[in-house]
Amino acid sequence: MSGHDFPAFSIDEYRARLARVRTRMQAGGLDALITTNPANMGYLTGYDGWSFYVHQCVIVSLALDEPIWVGRGMDANAARVTTWLSDNSIVGYPDDYVQSLERHPMDFVADLMKSRSIGAGNIGVEKDGYYFTAGSLEHLLAGLPYASFHDTTKLIAWVKCVKSEAEMALMRDAARISEKTMAVAIDMVRPGVRQCDAAAAILKAQVEGHADAGGDYPAIMPMLPSGIGTSTPHLTWTDAPFRTGEATILELAGVRRRYHCPMARTVHLGPPPARLADTAKVVVEGLNTAIAAAHPGVVCEEVEAAWRAVISRHGIVKDSRMGYSCGLAYPPDWGEGTLSLRPGDRTELEPGMTIHVMPGVWLDDWGIEISECVHITPDGARRLCNFPQPLVVK
Amino acid sequence: MSGHDFPAFSIDEYRARLARVRTRMQAGGLDALITTNPANMGYLTGYDGWSFYVHQCVIVSLALDEPIWVGRGMDANAARVTTWLSDNSIVGYPDDYVQSLERHPMDFVADLMKSRSIGAGNIGVEKDGYYFTAGSLEHLLAGLPYASFHDTTKLIAWVKCVKSEAEMALMRDAARISEKTMAVAIDMVRPGVRQCDAAAAILKAQVEGHADAGGDYPAIMPMLPSGIGTSTPHLTWTDAPFRTGEATILELAGVRRRYHCPMARTVHLGPPPARLADTAKVVVEGLNTAIAAAHPGVVCEEVEAAWRAVISRHGIVKDSRMGYSCGLAYPPDWGEGTLSLRPGDRTELEPGMTIHVMPGVWLDDWGIEISECVHITPDGARRLCNFPQPLVVK
Repeated sequence: MSGHDFPAFSIDEYRARLARVRTRMQAGGLDALITTNPANMGYLTGYDGWSFYVHQCVIVSLALDEPIWVGRGMDANAARVTTWLSDNSIVGYPDDYVQSLERHPMDFVADLMKSRSIGAGNIGVEKDGYYFTAGSLEHLLAGLPYASFHDTTKLIAWVKCVKSEAEMALMRDAARISEKTMAVAIDMVRPGVRQCDAAAAILKAQVEGHADAGGDYPAIMPMLPSGIGTSTPHLTWTDAPFRTGEATILELAGVRRRYHCPMARTVHLGPPPARLADTAKVVVEGLNTAIAAAHPGVVCEEVEAAWRAVISRHGIVKDSRMGYSCGLAYPPDWGEGTLSLRPGDRTELEPGMTIHVMPGVWLDDWGIEISECVHITPDGARRLCNFPQPLVVK
Repeated sequence: MSGHDFPAFSIDEYRARLARVRTRMQAGGLDALITTNPANMGYLTGYDGWSFYVHQCVIVSLALDEPIWVGRGMDANAARVTTWLSDNSIVGYPDDYVQSLERHPMDFVADLMKSRSIGAGNIGVEKDGYYFTAGSLEHLLAGLPYASFHDTTKLIAWVKCVKSEAEMALMRDAARISEKTMAVAIDMVRPGVRQCDAAAAILKAQVEGHADAGGDYPAIMPMLPSGIGTSTPHLTWTDAPFRTGEATILELAGVRRRYHCPMARTVHLGPPPARLADTAKVVVEGLNTAIAAAHPGVVCEEVEAAWRAVISRHGIVKDSRMGYSCGLAYPPDWGEGTLSLRPGDRTELEPGMTIHVMPGVWLDDWGIEISECVHITPDGARRLCNFPQPLVVK
């Protein structure tokens, strides 16, 4: 591949990740593990391609030195270009397995595992992982009758949750892209500008990145709900124009080599209603109070409690979680599916975690989001972006 | 929602789609059906939001007049904004079901179905559908012991495969966006330009769309493999520059309100090697021969055979399918997962189908793609885009 070295990290780093996964596998009594989550596949091998719309996986076996990448034949060259694996660990399946009613790629995976003598024993599968369908498990069960399957949906995700210094360098690059992109986004929210034109400018800024660090595609498209759309967080854009007297929520992430640094801000065109202006101040205070509480050793629900104490003083109620782990990601989510800042989550914060502290409030017909992505350091949570927090009034 | 009416089609059109799905359900002896595929959810209800990273579904029951949308509580307002469903048919689940180890959203779905007396009988699930995990099926099986589950992965997809005139209007808007975007893409492939800057310009053009028809996000990010990367189709961009003496494959789609019109072209910087120039001519001839063969009543493998006859005369071998149905789509795929132009596919072409005729050739260290999206009409296949096909030499 010309320029831009693959994979993104040293082989030592990939081997260290693999060792941490193996340790958890041994602790769980597993002989092998299959992951279809593109973020997990990339985390262990460096694989990077938009091929997750067909079945593919990475297999980790305690009996083998390297993971095995299995995917569609035409994507095997992408594995050769992007991963650190040797050729023997890259296996493509024939194209007549693709979206077929007669054969399933997991039949091929089962046969491959048997042929390499890793198809029996205790095998972990991510039962609730992205792109691991009900059909995938049925075909593995049928094809590997001497295996016993166990749910490892979160096993790799918990390893991935704590970032290395090399990963943090990419997160900081991503943060710089977030800052630049949010400035573009706020500039584009003007009366009469179509939402799609704002989204186009946002995507352009995200993907260009900086001169020394090009951008990557986000695992979630830019969100820019406007007007009554702010009452719900996951609307994308339309071609309607922004209007004076309406709020717009901007939620986006700078992305560097698949590492995401998300940020949300809220803009109002014209003088804002008092309820919005007042709530914005409370949200900012609660957000920063939560960040101040996020030290190593503190558990997730304690961070949420710090936020809740602030908002309940002001009569605001929020039922949903106010943060989650984020980082290396592919569509459909930049979250990692591990820790959540919510009551009942007793995960202890550790240095190296990166968390999107996202105290969105959505009510019947309006809402607000102001968020920060933070890095848990030995000294506490550090904001990755440096960008003004208050409600933007234009 | 300000401007841009939701849903995208008339209620009559949604009801007609639902009637066609019900007919197939009755023919299959089904009482109800659950779909998690965002394209299928949107096809039946109009729902449009980036919320498919958490569990959600649409339930169709023969006993109920309307489908039921079930999703995360905070996304229920998005269903109110974007769908034609009445409030009673929009149900949000509490946020502590999200990415939890203790409870699964499909437990909630099972309880809801029991409470509405539609949780027994023969229930279709898309066992190999996007976002329908192995865990989802396990929880439904446990929660609905009086139901018998059947695989309906392709049921809605086959209905969706034949487009109405209103859908074709959006496909034609998408085609105009494809034309504009491909012109931008070809312009950006210049020596020294970073791939990420080309991708940024492509996304901007896609999402801006036209003054009378704004663009939407593509279900697959722009592909622009360059140099040895052209040996494999699904690499996205890096921040390396384009180089003289290298080819770049451009595969992208214009998108209008989730309807996709894909197109691929190949560019070479500097005088191309003879093998590339010669193969490009054969690919163009084979592509147009296949399109000429694609009439209603012809079966898919016959279209592929027309292509194969041309390339085999020139000694070119292609193992993978050379086309597939496309249209309404969400990440990760703009294909519909139904018909494929390949040996063994005996699907009869019908007016209203839209097919990406995509004869990519990928060899050890180089490749080429030149494609067209066509509309099957009573008179034969009509190209949706009007864009020069030959290898672009700059």
